Amino acid sequence: MSSLELLSQHACFGGQQRFYKHDSAQIGLPMRFSVYLPPQAGAGRVPVLFYLAGLTCTEETFMIKAGAQRLAARHGIMLVAPDTSPRGANLPGETDSWDFGAGAGFYLDATEQPWARHYRMHSYIVEELFGIATAELPGDGARAGVFGHSMGGHGALVLALRNPGKFRSVSAFAPIAHPSDCPWGHKAFGNYLGNDREQWKQYDATELMRGARQPFPGGILVDQGLADQFLDAQLRPEAFEDACRQAGQPLELRRHAGYDHGYYFISTFMEDHLAFHAKALGA
Amino acid sequence: MSSLELLSQHACFGGQQRFYKHDSAQIGLPMRFSVYLPPQAGAGRVPVLFYLAGLTCTEETFMIKAGAQRLAARHGIMLVAPDTSPRGANLPGETDSWDFGAGAGFYLDATEQPWARHYRMHSYIVEELFGIATAELPGDGARAGVFGHSMGGHGALVLALRNPGKFRSVSAFAPIAHPSDCPWGHKAFGNYLGNDREQWKQYDATELMRGARQPFPGGILVDQGLADQFLDAQLRPEAFEDACRQAGQPLELRRHAGYDHGYYFISTFMEDHLAFHAKALGA
Repeated sequence: MSSLELLSQHACFGGQQRFYKHDSAQIGLPMRFSVYLPPQAGAGRVPVLFYLAGLTCTEETFMIKAGAQRLAARHGIMLVAPDTSPRGANLPGETDSWDFGAGAGFYLDATEQPWARHYRMHSYIVEELFGIATAELPGDGARAGVFGHSMGGHGALVLALRNPGKFRSVSAFAPIAHPSDCPWGHKAFGNYLGNDREQWKQYDATELMRGARQPFPGGILVDQGLADQFLDAQLRPEAFEDACRQAGQPLELRRHAGYDHGYYFISTFMEDHLAFHAKALGA
Repeated sequence: MSSLELLSQHACFGGQQRFYKHDSAQIGLPMRFSVYLPPQAGAGRVPVLFYLAGLTCTEETFMIKAGAQRLAARHGIMLVAPDTSPRGANLPGETDSWDFGAGAGFYLDATEQPWARHYRMHSYIVEELFGIATAELPGDGARAGVFGHSMGGHGALVLALRNPGKFRSVSAFAPIAHPSDCPWGHKAFGNYLGNDREQWKQYDATELMRGARQPFPGGILVDQGLADQFLDAQLRPEAFEDACRQAGQPLELRRHAGYDHGYYFISTFMEDHLAFHAKALGA
């Protein structure tokens, strides 16, 4: 059992929106996360869908902006959203940039100093938060999916491709699809993982797909706005698309004219993502 | 024509989420507001629904948190959300409290100094913003409604009851329904309107209903959470309910067990409010 502390609770679409804090063993610091419990959770375990947010976001962003609770209530899916990095590690340079350090954990386990002790978002989510969601909370560990946006879209793809036994469905909004080959990824991976680019491949969805021995079951859904201000320089969906094609990985990559990188885009297509996961998770 | 400046624009549910700034003649300062244009606005004028937010909110709050654009797109309704007060008047005490001054304009025209020059949110919305929405933007001035939350629920009820020729439909979430008789109202009305309580009546929905000569057409919809932390001390829905009963005013006041004062509550019942206005406005 962990030190789960309920910070607040709000009725929402017949279920419960909750915010928790706990002492994370993986991170070595207190961490916050949010949970939406659909009405169906009152009657037993329900499928659980993890959402990973983008740069500068917190555990609150998705629950406020995405309009997902209505759909989670309809499908009977529990939603879990972690914070985007450790908080309060007080490391040099941790809060100097919006795209590195606090608010920018990139969902990996850092190996370089001074980041290696606390910046362990990959293990935190896959091991610790997954465990809390499926043991202390009513998530069904056999029916778990993951999705996310931008840095969190990268995180979702990487978590699913590395842990297909844990995550049975994956989708993404405007993911950083090939971080080894974009400025955000260079900065984050260089600092967190060091200069050996071979090490970067384990956290790069395009590289993971290139090395995949078998397709991710059920296919992958990705939505991308064509008016996204970060599309050309940072996101590289075409690299991931190529890798999927070569690997025989079913991918539905939808390109939407006029849509940008924000939650007005995400909320528009949220219904399709919840339906995609609900189908895959038997919700 | 006003000095309308488009600050940003985001595709959203097939329509456009926009943020504007303009030099307000009524307020005497630059004001910001947000607009959601449904896809149907591309083909001509559409019904327009004004949303008035609560204490501390801005023109952005509703558009981020309420999940209304999906429904506005479905019904073909344009949404308009003003800021909750003048900004930057630099008056003494303007930013000392969260429940008075900046972020707390209470949708009235102040008569007391130093507030009287700039704090004219009632005339700003009814005259100036209504004009912009129905002349420079594609709102149909003959099919306008208003709704809001808390302080903005008070504002919506007051604007509609005072201007039934302009607003054909009205609803509210957890409105401050009898501000003359609660601490928030005492503070705001005393400072903005002075000590003559007769003057307060023109901005008190319960008092307006008590003095109404005929019911507001189409009825009034109000949702109230029973776990609302401000219900007992500030909101007084029962006073408004009594006044409606005595005036023969059709009112649907729905009390929801477990729901609190925030946007998790509001978003849950947003669909019912958009449907209510759509029906009244012929959308």
